[in-house]
Amino acid sequence: MQPDQTKLQFDKKGNLRHLLSLKGIGAELLVQLLEDAERYLTAPGTLAARSQSLAGRTIGNLFFEPSTRTRASFDLAGRRLGADVLNLDVNTSSRKKGESILDTIYTLEAMHVDIMVVRDASDGVSAYIARNVNDHISVLNAGESDISHPTQGLLDLMTIRQHNDDFKNMAVAIVGDIQHSRVAMSASEALQTMGIGELRLVSPKALAPSADRFPGARIVDNLADGLKDADVVMALRIQRERIGNLDGVPGIDEYFANYGISHESLAYAKPDAIVMHPGPMNRGIEIEGTLADGPRSVITKQVTNGVAIRMAVLNHIGKMMNTR
Amino acid sequence: MQPDQTKLQFDKKGNLRHLLSLKGIGAELLVQLLEDAERYLTAPGTLAARSQSLAGRTIGNLFFEPSTRTRASFDLAGRRLGADVLNLDVNTSSRKKGESILDTIYTLEAMHVDIMVVRDASDGVSAYIARNVNDHISVLNAGESDISHPTQGLLDLMTIRQHNDDFKNMAVAIVGDIQHSRVAMSASEALQTMGIGELRLVSPKALAPSADRFPGARIVDNLADGLKDADVVMALRIQRERIGNLDGVPGIDEYFANYGISHESLAYAKPDAIVMHPGPMNRGIEIEGTLADGPRSVITKQVTNGVAIRMAVLNHIGKMMNTR
Amino acid sequence: MQPDQTKLQFDKKGNLRHLLSLKGIGAELLVQLLEDAERYLTAPGTLAARSQSLAGRTIGNLFFEPSTRTRASFDLAGRRLGADVLNLDVNTSSRKKGESILDTIYTLEAMHVDIMVVRDASDGVSAYIARNVNDHISVLNAGESDISHPTQGLLDLMTIRQHNDDFKNMAVAIVGDIQHSRVAMSASEALQTMGIGELRLVSPKALAPSADRFPGARIVDNLADGLKDADVVMALRIQRERIGNLDGVPGIDEYFANYGISHESLAYAKPDAIVMHPGPMNRGIEIEGTLADGPRSVITKQVTNGVAIRMAVLNHIGKMMNTR
Repeated sequence: MQPDQTKLQFDKKGNLRHLLSLKGIGAELLVQLLEDAERYLTAPGTLAARSQSLAGRTIGNLFFEPSTRTRASFDLAGRRLGADVLNLDVNTSSRKKGESILDTIYTLEAMHVDIMVVRDASDGVSAYIARNVNDHISVLNAGESDISHPTQGLLDLMTIRQHNDDFKNMAVAIVGDIQHSRVAMSASEALQTMGIGELRLVSPKALAPSADRFPGARIVDNLADGLKDADVVMALRIQRERIGNLDGVPGIDEYFANYGISHESLAYAKPDAIVMHPGPMNRGIEIEGTLADGPRSVITKQVTNGVAIRMAVLNHIGKMMNTR
Repeated sequence: MQPDQTKLQFDKKGNLRHLLSLKGIGAELLVQLLEDAERYLTAPGTLAARSQSLAGRTIGNLFFEPSTRTRASFDLAGRRLGADVLNLDVNTSSRKKGESILDTIYTLEAMHVDIMVVRDASDGVSAYIARNVNDHISVLNAGESDISHPTQGLLDLMTIRQHNDDFKNMAVAIVGDIQHSRVAMSASEALQTMGIGELRLVSPKALAPSADRFPGARIVDNLADGLKDADVVMALRIQRERIGNLDGVPGIDEYFANYGISHESLAYAKPDAIVMHPGPMNRGIEIEGTLADGPRSVITKQVTNGVAIRMAVLNHIGKMMNTR
Repeated sequence: MQPDQTKLQFDKKGNLRHLLSLKGIGAELLVQLLEDAERYLTAPGTLAARSQSLAGRTIGNLFFEPSTRTRASFDLAGRRLGADVLNLDVNTSSRKKGESILDTIYTLEAMHVDIMVVRDASDGVSAYIARNVNDHISVLNAGESDISHPTQGLLDLMTIRQHNDDFKNMAVAIVGDIQHSRVAMSASEALQTMGIGELRLVSPKALAPSADRFPGARIVDNLADGLKDADVVMALRIQRERIGNLDGVPGIDEYFANYGISHESLAYAKPDAIVMHPGPMNRGIEIEGTLADGPRSVITKQVTNGVAIRMAVLNHIGKMMNTR
C-alpha cells in the first residue's frame, strides 16, 4: 500500500469513492457504514431488505480468482439495491500483461459499468484499476492477495460490535495462518482504527507475520496465551496444502491440538467470548465442528452481515454518484 | 426414502414446504398444482406468463450435477415470478464431506436465500438439506441420483392429463433404462397416486428395476407387449456408455430395433397414443427422430409444462411463506 | 450466404425479424438502426439509457464459441430494455450433430425464449436456426465463423458515421487478417450499402481474401498504399497462432513493422483519420498501445456504440413482435 492509496479512495469532496483497503478509513466512516448496514438486517424468514438506491446502475463482478461466497454476497447485495450485476468469467490465463487487465476495464467502462468489484490473487490490482478508470467509476476490492479484503474487515468489525462495542477494553485473538491472511490484515486495520484494547495474532512461528505489517498487535505462538480472557476469537482458514508441508507447520492432528479453536481451547477465553471464522471452514483442523455450529459461534451471522455491509458500501457509493 | 421423509415435506399446518419426492403428495394436491400450472401457459409468440408472487424472495440454484435444461427451467420460472435467482457454480470436487454441503447451505441461509433448488447425483442430499435448514427455508429436489425428480414427474403428469384425464382407464408404457431412471420413478409415483389403470415398465432384462421399487407396475421385456394399446408411450434417455457395454444390453442398432420408439413400434399402441421423452434425446437410439418431431410427440409440450409446473410449485411455496 | 437468406431476415410484412447478415439490409434500415442507437448514448457517469420496451420478453444467449465482450454487450443491452436474459452454458463438445442444436433450440422455444442470440464457430448455424424456429422467434447472429458478425458491422458503421457521414467521399482501410475476418466482412457489407467511396483491404498476401468475397473493395498488400489518405483505419485482431506459423505470414516484429497500425504508419492516412479495432487487442502486434489509448482512437467508443446498437436492434425486433 503506497502512501497515496489512502487518498485515492476519496474523491475531491472527501467522499468515499473506491474501497481498496481499510487503511485510511476513519472511525466515523467505519461506524456510519456499520450503522447503515444494521438497517439492512431483517429477521430470517421475512423478506430480505431491498431498496432501489442503485436502480439504473451496473455492477461488474470481476473475479480473477475464483470465489463462490464473496461473489454471491456482492451479487445479492447489488441486486437487492436494484442494480444490474454482470458476473464476468475472467479466466486468469487470458491476461498475462497489465495492459490486458486495463483493456478489460476500459471495455466495461465503455459499456457503462459504474462499479467494479475486483478480486485478484496478486497485489495492487484493484488500486491499479482505480488509478486508471474514469472519474465516474468506483472500484471495490473484494479480496487481494495476502494483503487486503476490506468488506470482510467491515463485516468482521460489524459482527464484533454487535457483541460488544467497547473496543478500548476488548481483547481480540486472531488464530491461524496470519502470514498469508488478508482477512487478518483487514480486521486488524479496522480494529486498530476503532482503538482496540488488545489485538493478538496467534500462529505457529512458521506462519507468523512480520511485526511491521501489524503495528500495535501482539504476536503470540502459544494458543493459551493468545486466547487468555479474549472477548473475541477469530479462527482463520488454513490452506490444506500448507499443513504438514511447510517447514515448521505441524500436520493436521497436531495443528488442531495446538492451534484449533475447540470447546477445550476456548476455555482460555472469556466465558462469553464469541467465535468467528471467515469461511469456508476446515472443520476439525482450525475449528471444531460442534463449536462452529454452537451458540458461541457467530459464523453465519458474519455471512448475513457480509451482505448487509456490502449493501451499505454500495449504497454509500451510489449516493456519492448521484450527488455528483 | 425413509418413512419420515413424506412428513418432512409438509409444515405443521400440513402445507407443502419442501418438494423432495412425489411419494406422499396426495391426488388433491397434485391436481391443484397441475391446475395452477395450466394458468401459466400462454400461446407461443405472446408474452410468457408472469407475476410478482415471489418478489423479494431469493432462489438458490444448487446444481451439484451439471444440467442445462432443468436449471434454465427453474431459473426462468423463478424470474417470471419476480424472484432473484442465484445460480451457484458448485464444483462437485469442492465437497467431499457432508459437513461442507451443510456449510454451503448455512451460508446461503445466512444470505437470506429462501428457496434452495438442489440437484445431486447421490441419494438423499435434498432430504438431508431439508432436515438441516431453518424453518423458513424450502428445498426443492431438482433431480436426485436414480431415485427422484419430482418436478419432472409433475410435468409428465400434467402432459399426460392434457391428453387424457381418465387415469383409471389408461395404460402408460415407460420404455428404456428403468433401473437407473429417476424420471420413471417420479412419473410412476405420480401416476399411481392418480390411480393409473396400468403402468408398464419396458426394458431389456439387464435394465429392469427390482419390482419392489415400482409397486403396482408391470415389468415387461418385450416392446410389443409393453406398448400394446397403450395411451401414452414415454421413452427414456439411455446413457450411451451403457449401450453395448453393460452385460445384456444390446448395441445401438439392436437397442433401437428392440426398444426404440419408432413409427413402426408405435403401431402397437393406441392410434391416438402420445409420445413423451424427458430430453435430451438420443435420436436414433431410444427414439426415432421424425417421430419426436411429428404430431404425436408432446416432447416440447413437456418442456413448456416444465416451466409452468415449476412456477406453480414455486408460487405454492411462496404463498405458504407469506402466510406464515 | 444462399440467395434466400436475405429474404429469410424479413417477415411477410417486410419487417426485420432475424439479423443474420448485413447483406440485404438496405441503407434506409441501416440508418434507422444507427439513429435509434444514438438515442441510447448517455454521458459517462450519468445513468445508462434504459427502457421497458422488451419487458416480459426472454432473450437466450447461446454462445457455442466463447466470448466475454459480445456476450456481456448483448446481456446488458437486453437487460437495459427490461428483458430477462438467459445465459446458456453451451458446451461445444455436447453437440456433434445438427439434430442436437435443433433440440436445444426447440427446448428454448418451448420455454418461451423470444429472441436467440447465437454465436458459432461454424458457417450457417444462425441461419439454420432461423429456418427452423417457430414464426414468433427471432434469431440474432452474434458472430459466425469467418463470415458474418452483423452487430459488429453496425457498431463499426455507427462509429464511422459519428466521425464522417459523407460515405461517398470516404476511404476506409481495414488492415490485418482479412481472410479469416467476420468483422471485415460485415463492415464491408455495411459500407458498400452506404455507397462507400473506397474500401481497401490491407494484408500480407497469405492473409488476403479472395476478391469475390468483397466485391467493390481494393485488395492491397502494402500498408503505405492501403492507408494513403484514408479517413478511417480499422486494425483487425490477428490470431497469435497464425503469426510466424502460417506460410507467408511474418513473425510478430516483422508483422508489426509491416502491418501494425502505429503513430508512424498512421501518418500515411488523413491527419484527422480515426483508428478502430474490434477488440480484444494484441497491443504491439496489430496496433501500437499508445495509439490505441490516444485521441485518434475510437476503440472504446466502438464498445459503447456496441451496447447502443444491440439495444436498437433488440428494440426494433421487440416492436415488430408487439405489433404482430
